[in-house]
Amino acid sequence: MDLLTLETPSLVLDISKIKRNITHIHKRMEKLGINLRPHGKTAKNIDVIKIALDGQAGGITVSTLKEAEYYFSHGIIDIVYAVGIAPVKLDRIAGLIKKGANITLILDSIEQVKFVAAKGQQYDLNIPVLIELDCDGHRSGVTLDDSLLLDIGHMLNREKGVMMSGVLTHAGESYQCKSVEEIRVLAKIERDMAVKCSEILRQNGLPCPIVSVGSTPTANFAEDLTGVTEVRAGVFMFYDLVMAGLGVCDKSDIAISVLTSIIGHQKRKGWVITDAGWMALSRDRGTASQKVDQGSGLVCNVEGDPLNDLIVSSTNQEHGIISDRSKKEIAWESFGIGSMVRILPNHACATGAMYDRYYITDGSTEIIDVWHRINGW
Amino acid sequence: MDLLTLETPSLVLDISKIKRNITHIHKRMEKLGINLRPHGKTAKNIDVIKIALDGQAGGITVSTLKEAEYYFSHGIIDIVYAVGIAPVKLDRIAGLIKKGANITLILDSIEQVKFVAAKGQQYDLNIPVLIELDCDGHRSGVTLDDSLLLDIGHMLNREKGVMMSGVLTHAGESYQCKSVEEIRVLAKIERDMAVKCSEILRQNGLPCPIVSVGSTPTANFAEDLTGVTEVRAGVFMFYDLVMAGLGVCDKSDIAISVLTSIIGHQKRKGWVITDAGWMALSRDRGTASQKVDQGSGLVCNVEGDPLNDLIVSSTNQEHGIISDRSKKEIAWESFGIGSMVRILPNHACATGAMYDRYYITDGSTEIIDVWHRINGW
Repeated sequence: MDLLTLETPSLVLDISKIKRNITHIHKRMEKLGINLRPHGKTAKNIDVIKIALDGQAGGITVSTLKEAEYYFSHGIIDIVYAVGIAPVKLDRIAGLIKKGANITLILDSIEQVKFVAAKGQQYDLNIPVLIELDCDGHRSGVTLDDSLLLDIGHMLNREKGVMMSGVLTHAGESYQCKSVEEIRVLAKIERDMAVKCSEILRQNGLPCPIVSVGSTPTANFAEDLTGVTEVRAGVFMFYDLVMAGLGVCDKSDIAISVLTSIIGHQKRKGWVITDAGWMALSRDRGTASQKVDQGSGLVCNVEGDPLNDLIVSSTNQEHGIISDRSKKEIAWESFGIGSMVRILPNHACATGAMYDRYYITDGSTEIIDVWHRINGW
Repeated sequence: MDLLTLETPSLVLDISKIKRNITHIHKRMEKLGINLRPHGKTAKNIDVIKIALDGQAGGITVSTLKEAEYYFSHGIIDIVYAVGIAPVKLDRIAGLIKKGANITLILDSIEQVKFVAAKGQQYDLNIPVLIELDCDGHRSGVTLDDSLLLDIGHMLNREKGVMMSGVLTHAGESYQCKSVEEIRVLAKIERDMAVKCSEILRQNGLPCPIVSVGSTPTANFAEDLTGVTEVRAGVFMFYDLVMAGLGVCDKSDIAISVLTSIIGHQKRKGWVITDAGWMALSRDRGTASQKVDQGSGLVCNVEGDPLNDLIVSSTNQEHGIISDRSKKEIAWESFGIGSMVRILPNHACATGAMYDRYYITDGSTEIIDVWHRINGW
């Protein structure tokens, strides 16, 4: 089957690019002497994660319990659920642990230690917990100067039902960096902060076996990870326009795209209308704040080669509007009504979330497989 | 069961508000003497559409073929697929028509007439077609001064495999209006343009039984729909912050909300961290261009009452950051870690799309039912 026979919109993954992207990061991790704990939140698919785990120690990161259950059902045992824990999720987590999953939680408050410990005691478990650190002011976590770090550490070490397993941080601000140099600086801050906290904990007699850091930008540019035990990253498998705009990858590395049909011309306005609106591309406008605003996506031919200056300049629910940002006349005959193009998305995680499957290609327009993905919680 | 027992994030629908919103539009349509053809793209659920169809002639509008198949499987025959048609969708449409569905397509080009007619002939069908009109420059459609209107009309009337069924327009620009008065003006433009086109077609000997207009804002404020045969609207069933910002509804009419757990405090920054990020709320920032920017959503207590000035000021994939836009100190004790709040979304269609089910309440926090929704294409 060929892409041209698919109903549109459809989500396409180029497996050769995924393998290349993953190999690149694996080589970096090898050089830095560190294990990669791939994040399953971008792909939400076991086939991709298996490639990412090849040669690694086997642990993954997830952003939802649905991911945890799904990956565990496919044989992955070692799972970090990297969102601060809420009480309503604990019965489901205890159920997974009882079945044999090794689920590690994160938290940054005394309240959370209390309810996790109570649930661990109820189920006769010692639930492994990492203290979430705030290395860059991005969102959650304990800061370096906060007495909470030791308070939580001591409580985790003392209470039954929980197990003090280490620290975790995520340099989420790296998505806002303006240069590769800024990313390098932030990667150092991320590493230094996590290692410093692990030292404080150990100096106070507390165990800290895991020192976990990561984001796709910092994973790409960290120069020294001494003292860190693992790196988490997810988007690097697919990449996207936000990552290309950051200088983390090239546009030609982007493995994910949306196949769409051309359903109209508004010639006076220079608009090509497609059936890939925001439902197909997501509402993500992550490049809006970058040097080059890619609208809601960059237009490629069906083979996947970017077409200069053609972007999705506007979207409705099931309509996309393509226009030329240099205001050149559209070559209408190249975009006949009923023909197809592919769109590189701003943000792989957000665009992926709109679909239940990937059509897999391998450098051509032939579909060699269909891989399913999970969504929801 | 009570909302407080649900895992978060979860999507909540208040059925009493839905019924009130639908009754309000039904009364308007009655007064204007016109049939409502509810749009199934917001709810993507048969239970809601059944309420919306009560007392109406029975036809609906859809934005995807998956919606068409789903609603048809629940007994709805008369369906307008209101996205310009692409060739790769025609076999599936022909299959539905063969099973007994009355699917009407829309198009705005000669090329589309050709491939629809060819497919109709292949399947021995006369596929009903509406000519899409552009009343406001929003996206697709034929303009009033374009000879395409008659060219397409004559071709639809002449060719085998297709049936000339009328005209359709959508005043999508009404979402950008700055006042109710502007919406009233646009509703008149929408009606006038559609009726004028129907007259031109009839004056040229062409049939035009259907004159279809609609958008939730114009459906709410149209004052005269003489010559129109049906009004399409979807968001009015749920409403959302964009509609409230437009003055189309009150915040208290919004029937859809996201239940979320509080998973952290960043007290120095005045941030309450929740587990409803953009995956739970969508990336929609539709209020960003309105008078009052509601961030990624307006915070309510678990009962659903808006809390003054608390908005979701930032989102990551599975994290939301709530802050007070008036910079008042957060009443931390009211937002304890592990407690829950509800978020009114910017855009009901976009937020709904992130979920596979609705938890139904009826004015209290008791869950009285679970309704499933479809997604994808």
